[in-house]
Amino acid sequence: MKSITLLGATGSIGLQTLDVIAEHPDQFKLYAIAFGRNIKKAQEIINKFNPAKVVVLDETIRQALQIHNSYTTFLVGKEALQEVSADPNTDVLVNAVMGSVGLEATLTAIEHRKQIAIANKETLVTAGHLVMDAADKYEVDLLPVDSEHSAIFQALNGESYRDINKIVLTASGGSFRDKSREELLGVTVADALKHPNWSMGAKITIDSASMMNKGLEVIEAHWLFNMPYEKIEVIQHKESIIHSMVEYADKSVIAQLGTPDMRVPIQYALTYPQRLSLSSSKSLDLVEMGELHFSKMDLNRFPCLDFAYQAGKTGGSMPTVLNAANETAVDLFLHEQITFLEIENIIEHAMLTHNNIQNPNLETINAIDLEIRSKINESYR
Amino acid sequence: MKSITLLGATGSIGLQTLDVIAEHPDQFKLYAIAFGRNIKKAQEIINKFNPAKVVVLDETIRQALQIHNSYTTFLVGKEALQEVSADPNTDVLVNAVMGSVGLEATLTAIEHRKQIAIANKETLVTAGHLVMDAADKYEVDLLPVDSEHSAIFQALNGESYRDINKIVLTASGGSFRDKSREELLGVTVADALKHPNWSMGAKITIDSASMMNKGLEVIEAHWLFNMPYEKIEVIQHKESIIHSMVEYADKSVIAQLGTPDMRVPIQYALTYPQRLSLSSSKSLDLVEMGELHFSKMDLNRFPCLDFAYQAGKTGGSMPTVLNAANETAVDLFLHEQITFLEIENIIEHAMLTHNNIQNPNLETINAIDLEIRSKINESYR
Repeated sequence: MKSITLLGATGSIGLQTLDVIAEHPDQFKLYAIAFGRNIKKAQEIINKFNPAKVVVLDETIRQALQIHNSYTTFLVGKEALQEVSADPNTDVLVNAVMGSVGLEATLTAIEHRKQIAIANKETLVTAGHLVMDAADKYEVDLLPVDSEHSAIFQALNGESYRDINKIVLTASGGSFRDKSREELLGVTVADALKHPNWSMGAKITIDSASMMNKGLEVIEAHWLFNMPYEKIEVIQHKESIIHSMVEYADKSVIAQLGTPDMRVPIQYALTYPQRLSLSSSKSLDLVEMGELHFSKMDLNRFPCLDFAYQAGKTGGSMPTVLNAANETAVDLFLHEQITFLEIENIIEHAMLTHNNIQNPNLETINAIDLEIRSKINESYR
Repeated sequence: MKSITLLGATGSIGLQTLDVIAEHPDQFKLYAIAFGRNIKKAQEIINKFNPAKVVVLDETIRQALQIHNSYTTFLVGKEALQEVSADPNTDVLVNAVMGSVGLEATLTAIEHRKQIAIANKETLVTAGHLVMDAADKYEVDLLPVDSEHSAIFQALNGESYRDINKIVLTASGGSFRDKSREELLGVTVADALKHPNWSMGAKITIDSASMMNKGLEVIEAHWLFNMPYEKIEVIQHKESIIHSMVEYADKSVIAQLGTPDMRVPIQYALTYPQRLSLSSSKSLDLVEMGELHFSKMDLNRFPCLDFAYQAGKTGGSMPTVLNAANETAVDLFLHEQITFLEIENIIEHAMLTHNNIQNPNLETINAIDLEIRSKINESYR
């Protein structure tokens, strides 16, 4: 029986993690959750899973929930994320909070040698060097939850890293894959939120449309698999059936495939190195699919992916700038304060005007992150 | 440095094995070869690789070769296949002889705990129960050379057999995949020998056209991976890029892909569990491919596949009957003594008129094999 602490419980990954826990009550127990502002959903989770500890954003939310849940321990604030991550009752930390707030919880869990299922992209994008150093030092596996990284992780099963020729990430192309640059001028938030294959949160769906999601995944893959950027390729594969691939020295390619269902990589991160049945997931039927398509990823069509490669190769504080600028810009777009294409302009401008700092520590990363966000917000809100 | 004994050196698999050995002179040394009637090619191999021992079919061939190769030891006859397989200087046996003559060499190599790269289908088809019992007893890995089984073997890397939901073998459809049953009435040997994707020997190319090749592979997969026939699927995939797949309990599918090049699975069987570079092989370019296609395998269109499932499920001596009838019929077709569709009739008749024997020993298998061949030859030659 694994005792699970789930950060970001009311988000898309969080809820699908709960599906997996609910399917295997003999294997998993929900020990603690953290969530943002969705009190209603949090109460449903408390009712169904009865976690011992719940981390909330502020005192108001705590008071609203404590009345109805007298046996639950509520903890308040960002520091409490670290507290539950370090808790001796936590066997597995599922880190599915959005944004760079997830970073310190990951580092704490590493120091306490927890099994970590990582769905928080920013952890690796902004502080990959710190996180992987810590993971090496404490000999902790970071188990990816992202379908692409889980695919690579599965394709690496039983293989030697030194035998890898390259990693090939697949990209669906997102909600705007069939639109030209010109057609992107007038797109709305509602248009952007219609992802063709995956059911995901708003931020990541916009990132899929801009291809920044794939860019962040390239940087994550660099850190997770210790792979130079030259050996990380992205190709377009509109059906999202081949989730990613590894080519080895002998030109043999190992790929992981499946219907697009986040519960599969989530469960794998919880059960690794074992597998469990997952009856709620649909078996892949390639005959029914009939065809799979592949095409070149055009960096002119999708400049955000180019920015991510550039930021990754530059290293230092540049990926923090990329990520902070993107998060802020996407938030502005979701609030209809900028157009879709302005997301790109904001990121490019932030990167061009940044004086890169090599090997930044956590304090520097946090300072740069804040600085970039406030600069952009000052200009656009 | 691994010392290799190669049975069937002048055939298609044999020659491609020699390509792999030649690419890695620091890793592999050719110790011994066996071949059939291609004296010219055998002499070229002796000149290039200088094997210490050469097994020949008969005294005439020995005399023809001994004159020019005074430092080579020649051995004559079927028993010599076992002698070189058991030789203390043999580290790896590559068994690529055609037909059931390869069986005893495999069993001998198992008893002497050799690493065995198995390209001889009949070994497992006719005597899977004996071979796998021996492999278990002597704790020997049978490393598949067939691209499909190698794909499954690679997809199983680091996984537990108990987590397998099913195995999915892919089939190109062979040279006649776009022809209806009616159009098959008039096909010639030359038509049948044009395989769309793979460069292989004549027998296996005909077997691909009749789908018997896939049927034999189903039976092999049953034995190699200890998989019930209900969990072995065949789908049509005309590009032969996904070489086969494994679906696990969580619906995750691991596949092995690559350009159709037998040197990749051959080398993997020689280097397992490591990989080596293979510069002569072409990297897979899915963008260049553009599309991959999948369709249902129609057992009415391809009755030989159905026969193989039936023979496999029946077990006992029935797979021996299937294999012997098929080998004899294909040989008759290659000598233009029967039509293509008569291959099916011959196999079906042989199976229908056979009194099945459960758990046959080697002697019984050999007796039935001979009996089936002579019966068919009496009727058709």
